[in-house]
Amino acid sequence: MSGPFSTPLPEPADRLARAALVRVSEPGDPRVAREVAAYGAVEAWRRVAALHPDVEPERELNVAMKAGLRLICPGDDEWPPGLDDLARPGPAAELAAPLALWVRGPRNLAETVRCAVGIVGSRAATSYGLHVAGELGFALAEQQWTVVSGAAYGIDAAAHRGAVVAAGPTIAVLACGADVAYPRANEAMLARIAAEGLVVSEAPPGGLPLRRRFLVRNRLIAALSGGTVVVEAGVRSGALSTARHARRIGRPVLAVPGPVTSGLSAGCHLILRQWPESVLVTSADEVIEAVGPMGRLAPLPIGQAGPRDGLDEVMKRVLEAVPSRRARDLQWIAAQSGESRFVVERMLQPLLANGLVEQSPAGYRLTDLGRLPAGGAPP
Amino acid sequence: MSGPFSTPLPEPADRLARAALVRVSEPGDPRVAREVAAYGAVEAWRRVAALHPDVEPERELNVAMKAGLRLICPGDDEWPPGLDDLARPGPAAELAAPLALWVRGPRNLAETVRCAVGIVGSRAATSYGLHVAGELGFALAEQQWTVVSGAAYGIDAAAHRGAVVAAGPTIAVLACGADVAYPRANEAMLARIAAEGLVVSEAPPGGLPLRRRFLVRNRLIAALSGGTVVVEAGVRSGALSTARHARRIGRPVLAVPGPVTSGLSAGCHLILRQWPESVLVTSADEVIEAVGPMGRLAPLPIGQAGPRDGLDEVMKRVLEAVPSRRARDLQWIAAQSGESRFVVERMLQPLLANGLVEQSPAGYRLTDLGRLPAGGAPP
Repeated sequence: MSGPFSTPLPEPADRLARAALVRVSEPGDPRVAREVAAYGAVEAWRRVAALHPDVEPERELNVAMKAGLRLICPGDDEWPPGLDDLARPGPAAELAAPLALWVRGPRNLAETVRCAVGIVGSRAATSYGLHVAGELGFALAEQQWTVVSGAAYGIDAAAHRGAVVAAGPTIAVLACGADVAYPRANEAMLARIAAEGLVVSEAPPGGLPLRRRFLVRNRLIAALSGGTVVVEAGVRSGALSTARHARRIGRPVLAVPGPVTSGLSAGCHLILRQWPESVLVTSADEVIEAVGPMGRLAPLPIGQAGPRDGLDEVMKRVLEAVPSRRARDLQWIAAQSGESRFVVERMLQPLLANGLVEQSPAGYRLTDLGRLPAGGAPP
Repeated sequence: MSGPFSTPLPEPADRLARAALVRVSEPGDPRVAREVAAYGAVEAWRRVAALHPDVEPERELNVAMKAGLRLICPGDDEWPPGLDDLARPGPAAELAAPLALWVRGPRNLAETVRCAVGIVGSRAATSYGLHVAGELGFALAEQQWTVVSGAAYGIDAAAHRGAVVAAGPTIAVLACGADVAYPRANEAMLARIAAEGLVVSEAPPGGLPLRRRFLVRNRLIAALSGGTVVVEAGVRSGALSTARHARRIGRPVLAVPGPVTSGLSAGCHLILRQWPESVLVTSADEVIEAVGPMGRLAPLPIGQAGPRDGLDEVMKRVLEAVPSRRARDLQWIAAQSGESRFVVERMLQPLLANGLVEQSPAGYRLTDLGRLPAGGAPP
């Protein structure tokens, strides 16, 4: 892990221009982003600098550095490649990717988000939601997964705290400046995160927690995470906006179910009902299975008797239907297994992930591992 | 609705033979079913009758009729066609379809199961599960949906009671004889169901509630229902066996989520995680949407703002991608919409169900309704 001040000095002109542009624009403003994309940050700043005589780029960087902040720009080794997904065009891409990020904390941002999960949910959470968020944060951090959240009351704070208790990595993505303690009641927690994890914002230092910045901030939580878990959220919760951003950029969206009698689980159930690719999760292992590097499957719940319970009979049948030499397509395997294409497609995913089946343009066939009698047993 | 005694008299030989075979064999025994399929019930009984000198077919029917029971056989107008799905060969078809059913109650069985939902779950349910089962039973019965369950303690009884309170149809499928009150504590409820709904069993009158008969009985709940809802079940609960039977015969399997901290919701979550075609449900409307006649969609949860929430943006995009004249296949629509085939396939279901899109061998295209500007807005 490189130290916090590994960015080269003196600051190049691009960095200075971005610091100034961050000061004078709102995060995610697509007009500024278009200018920067078209002419570069230096020229974009030159065009508007006269309108902001009070903004001095050097001072932006120097004052912030004294407050323990550093600016991470595209191209820096700390810049997480995943952020670039926000620049993809798309139906919900009315917000631009960040120009730069202000960061506080002793970790390398790009390294810290390599294995990262967003945990989001309502401020007004129930004790059930707080419990689950805390447990997830703890268990993920214990396994060295970074917990990304928004440092808000409720689910966010519970998830961060779980990670802090596990002495694992956590990232607070703020809507205000990275040096502003908001909400005030979470000041001690934010200080702890800044000391051991990372506090990140695309707002300028000292920036206020304006209402619109929260929704804009949510896309950063989504983009800094390999997947986003919604723990507890009403159907109008801001957590659903984070989930929608995650979905838009192709990251797994996970939701924790809860009582159907609780309005605070209704947003989670809505996601699970309406987004076919969303994943119901009940434990950190299941989160890692959905978000993590391929090849890790969550253990089945204790008490499940495997084949006798029949839940994985279908997967067995699909595996048995996969040819061992000549690759065949979905249709063929579906006909062979007696299962629908829909089911076969879903069942093949964990088999591919576990290296039992391989895919080529010609279709699917067993790997060497899949051909082994032992490896042939489904997980 | 025809009366309970509409079966023609005198009893034909086939009916007498089935009554006798039910008396001397265990429900679902595939050997007996094979004999009946190969030689007919009369010959199958003739072959074994000498081994059972104490069984008199006429007495079977007469004694039972005096106790208010009637025998429903394949071919009778009361025989539900859905039961024949149990005779389909398949990997889990170690149990045969019933030879006949003993029935008590004033309704026509075939008519009563035309719109029917199975509600199953654990005996040792939580207050949450009992509440949800009761509410579901009530709301379904209020809308004239028949609630099918097993009259056991816990979820079963709560679902039946909900239906009884709504003065709606309910069917208790017993593992013991249809004239046996088991469990004893549910005797009053069973009497009420027999008086207003139906009590059904494939065990002979007076038959004991043997352990293995419960699992065998579960396939009847699945086959008498358009779909089965698991309200609360541990991962080893018998309710999962009912769900597996429903799945095997191609009926929708629905599950009610609950707290991930509750072992009694773990079976529901397991289904929702492992069976891609299973449906998470939170209300009776959602149950009817999943099980009911095509064209009914559940209202979205109150508070959802439609397009602004973005949850149905994907469906909108899919609808916009469906051609209005020349039908196109999934792949084409997926490419057009920018969504995956997987997503498009799922999104097309409610559009088909609502009559906005029609399917032909050539693919999908808009209906007249779908082409209307008003009808074109997704539900």
